[in-house]
Amino acid sequence: MSLNETFRSLKEAQARLALENREAKDKALGAVAAAVDAYRTAILKANAGDVEKAAAGGMKEALVDRLLLNDKRIDGIIEGIADVIRLEDPIGRVSAGWKTPNGLFIERVAVPLGVAAIIYESRPNVTADAFSLAYKAGCAILLRGSSAALSSNRALLKAIREGLEQGGGISAAVSLADSGSRSEVDEILGARGWIDVILPRGGRELIRRVVENARVPVIETGEGNCHIFVDQSADEENALAVIENAKVQKPGACNAVETVLVHRSIAERFIPRLGRRLAGRVELRGDELSCAFLRQQGVLPPQLTVKAANEQDWETEYLDYILAVKIVSSLEEAIDHINRYGTKHSEAILTNDLAAAGEFCRRVDAACVYTNASTRFTDGGQFGFGAELGISTQKIHARGPMGLEALTTVKYRISGNGQVRL
Amino acid sequence: MSLNETFRSLKEAQARLALENREAKDKALGAVAAAVDAYRTAILKANAGDVEKAAAGGMKEALVDRLLLNDKRIDGIIEGIADVIRLEDPIGRVSAGWKTPNGLFIERVAVPLGVAAIIYESRPNVTADAFSLAYKAGCAILLRGSSAALSSNRALLKAIREGLEQGGGISAAVSLADSGSRSEVDEILGARGWIDVILPRGGRELIRRVVENARVPVIETGEGNCHIFVDQSADEENALAVIENAKVQKPGACNAVETVLVHRSIAERFIPRLGRRLAGRVELRGDELSCAFLRQQGVLPPQLTVKAANEQDWETEYLDYILAVKIVSSLEEAIDHINRYGTKHSEAILTNDLAAAGEFCRRVDAACVYTNASTRFTDGGQFGFGAELGISTQKIHARGPMGLEALTTVKYRISGNGQVRL
Repeated sequence: MSLNETFRSLKEAQARLALENREAKDKALGAVAAAVDAYRTAILKANAGDVEKAAAGGMKEALVDRLLLNDKRIDGIIEGIADVIRLEDPIGRVSAGWKTPNGLFIERVAVPLGVAAIIYESRPNVTADAFSLAYKAGCAILLRGSSAALSSNRALLKAIREGLEQGGGISAAVSLADSGSRSEVDEILGARGWIDVILPRGGRELIRRVVENARVPVIETGEGNCHIFVDQSADEENALAVIENAKVQKPGACNAVETVLVHRSIAERFIPRLGRRLAGRVELRGDELSCAFLRQQGVLPPQLTVKAANEQDWETEYLDYILAVKIVSSLEEAIDHINRYGTKHSEAILTNDLAAAGEFCRRVDAACVYTNASTRFTDGGQFGFGAELGISTQKIHARGPMGLEALTTVKYRISGNGQVRL
Repeated sequence: MSLNETFRSLKEAQARLALENREAKDKALGAVAAAVDAYRTAILKANAGDVEKAAAGGMKEALVDRLLLNDKRIDGIIEGIADVIRLEDPIGRVSAGWKTPNGLFIERVAVPLGVAAIIYESRPNVTADAFSLAYKAGCAILLRGSSAALSSNRALLKAIREGLEQGGGISAAVSLADSGSRSEVDEILGARGWIDVILPRGGRELIRRVVENARVPVIETGEGNCHIFVDQSADEENALAVIENAKVQKPGACNAVETVLVHRSIAERFIPRLGRRLAGRVELRGDELSCAFLRQQGVLPPQLTVKAANEQDWETEYLDYILAVKIVSSLEEAIDHINRYGTKHSEAILTNDLAAAGEFCRRVDAACVYTNASTRFTDGGQFGFGAELGISTQKIHARGPMGLEALTTVKYRISGNGQVRL
């Protein structure tokens, strides 16, 4: 099928899917989960081929791991579909309704967004997550995965489509753009009138390319240069645990912390403690004073790596076992630093000061602002949204973790008895 | 001020405006209304210059009328600001809040969208409407009006800023891009990181140019190829009144009807009645059978103009005293025609059949679907939103008339007591 035919077929399928009730959609998703289970061997075999090729081609180990499927991860995919089945149907919800002075009754009703396209890298579980959320929201979806995951995605798509057919669903509502050519992406980016939204999910380069070239609305995801500010009143023991968690638990995630800001009045004690806590696992890049505190003779273990930070460190999303450290003389300075260098993703203050917590949450401009918790909780699953489509870092339409609701729009339904405008 | 300095100044002002309470914002807006009144003579004088230049330059009369300000229209601007003052503050509203299994308390709070830019044509009252909505929503706004309205907009901006200063407001939160050069628009379209949303408001060409070139999120407005379907069970007398209203009351508006679809079983009687009703005021462009019904000897007044419609007529937003007429053999055919040629703006069914009304509203894909009312009601004021920023015809972020809420986004506020992710 050419991509143009695919667009047409998705649009036509979406018009039918939009009319399906929850019962029908959940039944079809249940059959998809069963089909993924039934096709498990074929999916794992296809994936093994992708993994082998990627490793032979010199792909980084962390990326190969993202690409890898195994029985446990297939179980995860199946559970993910079951989670989506349990979610309320977002469609048909009336979020407002009122009568106008001349007697028109206006209702605002949630309807499917339409046809979505997701352009993503490596992880084949995104294929199933994005499909199942889209289907539940009554949206058709075009999947454009990375070429490295092509065989895995094809095998998954085969299972999804067979499941839909067995479950009385609409199998044309999902399609894989699998020519592997770059011009295919350009066609998607230019598909005005066919695609209602494009969701790029992946590295900075991918997102930049999509934003710069798309003529279809885009929801940007992902880039997270996240901060934790340790205020003077913070519980220091807990602060160490939160920073460790936010940095080490999954450094490649967009909600991992990249820079820690420490209040001047506790810095001399706290920063060496932080150094001891992370020594041998995380490289620290400090401003001048932090480095001085960290290099005091005899205090720190020899395996701690400390480097001087420069302007670029404040801007960098390391996605690695590296943490920038900066001393600030006030809450004000911390907020200014975050609003200047942050990517409006997830920002945390650790404090016991009520006024400071309030001020931080009000003035920091980000999708998620935390008081006394790890930034790692910015995630659709952790928020209770079921699966997630990604984390929006833009301000229009959706912000933060995107679940089902991000795939809906509204329709105004107006009922009259012959009104004309005066 | 260069445009780059303007971006910086707007962003800085917005950060401060975001923290203002309703009381302060309303007080500043009240002072702006007073200042517009106080500067009335200067504004009218500046506008007279714009109007004279436009007329001398050969601008169409209808467009000159859109450009024109007079005492009554200034009163309208002042009343518009008073309407916005009366609206609830959209900021700070908590639209959801819940506790996660590990004890995090998550709230979703409405916050200002940030810095908006509006690129618009002719009508100077948009300057005041867009500013007052933006200010109330805590957004800074960059106004880029047409060069034809430059003096009017400068005079209005002067009044707005003086009002803000007198009322203790933040005058740097509004700015006019007034170099008149096209490259200025390109700079706005490329201002990633400075502008959060661009709202183009005007003709097809303007909107196309913005959508194709913007690297900042855009909300498309306006194009309305709207339909009215007269079902076989419609009250025909009322149908004539509704169609007349939707076509004649303001043909240049995006919510005016462009094509009427008539059920075959009533067409032979209804279409000649429609012809008589609109004769001398509206040119009809009919499909073959409609034309035959309209040309039956002796039935119609001589001043009725009837032409044969072609494919292009179904696609055209006339914005003029022209109406396309097509006979359809079923509700199904009417819905298919609308979903094929419509611009997803405003679509109406006139019927007394409950099932047909329900089917039409479910299956027609548009921002506003009407049962038994004129499409002309698609309007922020008519909906009770106060002023409007335009009517979104896209599906993401905002759909249909856009009032204050379209200028907000959300922030998740997460409060914990030291949680880390497991």
